Amino acid sequence: MENPHGTLEVLDAEGLSAIHTASTRVLEELGIELWSPEARRLFADAGAKIDGEVVRIGADIVEAALATAPSSFTLTSRNPSKQLRIGGRSMAFGLVAGPAAVHDEIEGRRASNMADYENFIRLAHYFNAIHIIGNQVVAPMELPANTRHLDAYRANLMLSDLSYHCTSIGRGRALDGIQMMAISRGDSLDDMAAAPGVTTIISVNSPRRFDAEMASGLMTMAEHGQPVSVTPFTLMGAMAPVTLAAALAQQNAEALFGIALTQLVRPGAPVLYGAFTSNVDMRSGAPAFGTPEQVKANVASGQLARRYGLPYRASNSSASNVVDAQAAYETQMSLWGCVLGGANLVYHAAGWMEGGLQASYEKLILDVEMLQQTMEFLTPVPCSGPDLAFDAMERVPTGGHFSATSTPSNAMRPPSTRH
Amino acid sequence: MENPHGTLEVLDAEGLSAIHTASTRVLEELGIELWSPEARRLFADAGAKIDGEVVRIGADIVEAALATAPSSFTLTSRNPSKQLRIGGRSMAFGLVAGPAAVHDEIEGRRASNMADYENFIRLAHYFNAIHIIGNQVVAPMELPANTRHLDAYRANLMLSDLSYHCTSIGRGRALDGIQMMAISRGDSLDDMAAAPGVTTIISVNSPRRFDAEMASGLMTMAEHGQPVSVTPFTLMGAMAPVTLAAALAQQNAEALFGIALTQLVRPGAPVLYGAFTSNVDMRSGAPAFGTPEQVKANVASGQLARRYGLPYRASNSSASNVVDAQAAYETQMSLWGCVLGGANLVYHAAGWMEGGLQASYEKLILDVEMLQQTMEFLTPVPCSGPDLAFDAMERVPTGGHFSATSTPSNAMRPPSTRH
Repeated sequence: MENPHGTLEVLDAEGLSAIHTASTRVLEELGIELWSPEARRLFADAGAKIDGEVVRIGADIVEAALATAPSSFTLTSRNPSKQLRIGGRSMAFGLVAGPAAVHDEIEGRRASNMADYENFIRLAHYFNAIHIIGNQVVAPMELPANTRHLDAYRANLMLSDLSYHCTSIGRGRALDGIQMMAISRGDSLDDMAAAPGVTTIISVNSPRRFDAEMASGLMTMAEHGQPVSVTPFTLMGAMAPVTLAAALAQQNAEALFGIALTQLVRPGAPVLYGAFTSNVDMRSGAPAFGTPEQVKANVASGQLARRYGLPYRASNSSASNVVDAQAAYETQMSLWGCVLGGANLVYHAAGWMEGGLQASYEKLILDVEMLQQTMEFLTPVPCSGPDLAFDAMERVPTGGHFSATSTPSNAMRPPSTRH
Repeated sequence: MENPHGTLEVLDAEGLSAIHTASTRVLEELGIELWSPEARRLFADAGAKIDGEVVRIGADIVEAALATAPSSFTLTSRNPSKQLRIGGRSMAFGLVAGPAAVHDEIEGRRASNMADYENFIRLAHYFNAIHIIGNQVVAPMELPANTRHLDAYRANLMLSDLSYHCTSIGRGRALDGIQMMAISRGDSLDDMAAAPGVTTIISVNSPRRFDAEMASGLMTMAEHGQPVSVTPFTLMGAMAPVTLAAALAQQNAEALFGIALTQLVRPGAPVLYGAFTSNVDMRSGAPAFGTPEQVKANVASGQLARRYGLPYRASNSSASNVVDAQAAYETQMSLWGCVLGGANLVYHAAGWMEGGLQASYEKLILDVEMLQQTMEFLTPVPCSGPDLAFDAMERVPTGGHFSATSTPSNAMRPPSTRH
C-alpha cells in the first residue's frame, strides 16, 4: 500500500540536526559495546577505535554506510504476486510477534502453543490488512527451544504465502529461515540475495550494547542480502534518558551503528531504520505504549529515517491487558504515529496486547478493523467529473435525500470487500 | 492551544479546485432554498437571483464575503484569562452538545434533566481539555422548552467561566445568550460586538435548505458581531451524494452561502467554515462516525477553510452506543481528522455517544483522557542542549538503566498536572 497523503513533522530543521549531532557525539565519544569479536574486526578494519568491547566510530563510517544502503527494496515471498516494496511512501503491516502467552475469550490467558501459532498464521493469510509475518507470533512453548524456529518457518510457508521474519538469535536460526524461504521459492541463496524474501529485527540491548547473538544474526542476514531492521529499544526513563530528544539521540546512535555494520558486511545490503521509543510509567517502571510521547517518537523517527534516505520500521502497540477502550485508543495513537511518520514496515500491527506479553485473538480482529480503516484513509480522494456527482445534486430536491440516488461507485466500497 | 506540527492534505491542488468549482456551480445553477424573507432581501440587494424561495448566487457575492470575513478572532468569556483565539493554528475543544438522553453506569440511559446539565458544566469547568461549552450539553427535559435556554445559559455562567454556545433557533434565544454573557462581563452589546463572547452553529438542513429559524439565528448573531459556524450536515448517501468529492462540493456550497449571509448582515462579522461530512451505513441508513471517510472529510474541509482564509469548525464523534473499544477508536479517528485538518474549534470533543443521541458521563472521562493525550502530542519537542542529556548518557553504563538518572524535567509532566 502507498500513502498518498504524506507525512507530518514534529521536529523543526534545527531540532532534527541537534538530534543527529548528539547521536554522532555518542558514537564518537561514548561508543557502543559490541560483544562479537568478528563484528569488532569489521569496524576496526574500517578505522573505528576499539577499546576492549567498546567501539567508537566517526561520521565517516556512518556516511559511507548511508551511501551504500538502499533507500528501498522489494521482499519476494513464495507468491510473487504478493511482492512488498519497502521504502518511499509504501506501508506494510506485520502480525504481532514475540509473546509467550496467548489470550482468547474462552480460555483466557495461557502459555501459547503450536496450535495457536498455526491459527494466527491462518488469520494473517486470510486478512488483507496483514502483509508480513513478524517474528514468532507466539512462542510454541511445548516444542524444544532449539528447533522451534523450524516449526514456525514451516507453518509460515505452509499456511500462508507471505514473507516472514527470521529469528536472528545467532547465525543458525537466521540461515535456516533464509534457506527455507529459498526452498519454497525454488531458488538458490544467490537468487535470494538478488531478490530478498525474508527479514529480521535486530533489537539493541539499549543503552549502547549489541550482544553477540544479535550481532551474529545481523551479519548472517546482511551477508545473504536479506533486510535487517536495526531497532534500539529505548524506553524513556528506563533504557534511555527521560527526555524525548535525548532518547531519540540515543536511538539514532544505536540504529546508525547497526546500520553501519550491515554495510561493512555487505555494501548495498537492504537495511531499515528501526524505532521503538516510548516511555515508562515513572512510578512503577511499567512500559507504556500508545502514549503521546510514542506518537511523537514515531513521527520524529520517520524524519530521521528520511534524512538518511532509509526505509523505516516502527510498531503498533498498547499496554492494555484486555481488549477494551484503552487497547483501542492506545493502538490508534501508535498507529497514527506510524502513518504520520511514514513507517514503511509496521510490526505488531495486529494482535499485540499487554505491552507485548500476550498475543490476543480478539485484539487481532479489533486491530484488523482499525488497519482496514487506515488502509481506506490511505486511498486518494477521486475528484473527477463523475465523482462530483453534479447530476445527483441536480436531481435531489432541496431538503430531499440521496438514499436512492445512483452515483459513481468508486468512492464507497461495501464492507464485504474488507476481509 | 496552538498546533506546532502543521496539517495534512488529502486533496491535491486539482482536487481542491474541482470541489471549489463544483460548489460554485451549485450556488449559481441550483441555488439554495432560503425560508427567511428578510435574508432573501439581503441577497437580492447584493445582486442574487431570487426565484420563489430559491436563491442563486454568483462568485462575486462569495468573493466579497470572503474579503470581509476575518481569518481569526478571539472569544472573551467572563474570565478574560480564558480568552480563546480561534483561527490560524489554534485548536479548542468543546463539550458534547444536543442530546436529549444521558447515560451513566449506575442509572443507564434515560432522559436528561437540569441536574445532569449542571453536572456536565461542572465537569467542563474542571478539566483543562474543555475550552468552550457547545450547544446545550443535554436538554433539561423537565423544563419548559421555551425558557430552557435561559436556565442553560445561567448554569453556563454560574458553574463555569467559559464561553458558550447560544441556541440559535430564532432570534430570541440567540439574543438572550448574547445579553446574558454581556451582563456577566458587565459589558454593553457594543462591547460584545467589539470583543465577542459567545458563538453558535447554524446547521444547514442539507441538501440546500436554510430554514427560517436558523437563518434568523444566524442574522442575530452576525448583527451583534458574534461568531457563527455555518455547518452543513452532509452525511454521504443520505443528505449528500455518496461520493466524498460530491459531498464536499455540496458542503462547500452550503457553507459558503451561509458565510455570505453573515457578511451581508455585518461585513467583518466573525464566521467559521463548518464541516460535518461523514457517511451512513448504506444497508440501514444509520449515521456512521469516526469512519475513514469522515477522517478524510475532516482533513479535506480544513484544506477548503484554509483556501478561503476562514477559521474552521469540525467535530469529534462516534456512533457507538456504549463506552467500548468501538467508541474509543471511532473517537480517535475523528479526533485525528480534526487535528490533521487543522480544526480551530472541535465541537462534541468530550461526552458524545450513540451518534449524538446520548451524552455520557463515562464517555466524557474517556474523551478527556484522549484529548489530554492530543494536547500533549500538540506540544513542541524541545531539542536544546539540556534536553539532549548527553551527560546522562555518559553517566549510565552500556546495558545499564536510566531509572534513577536525573535529566531536565521539561519533557515529561507527571500525570497529576493533567486535570
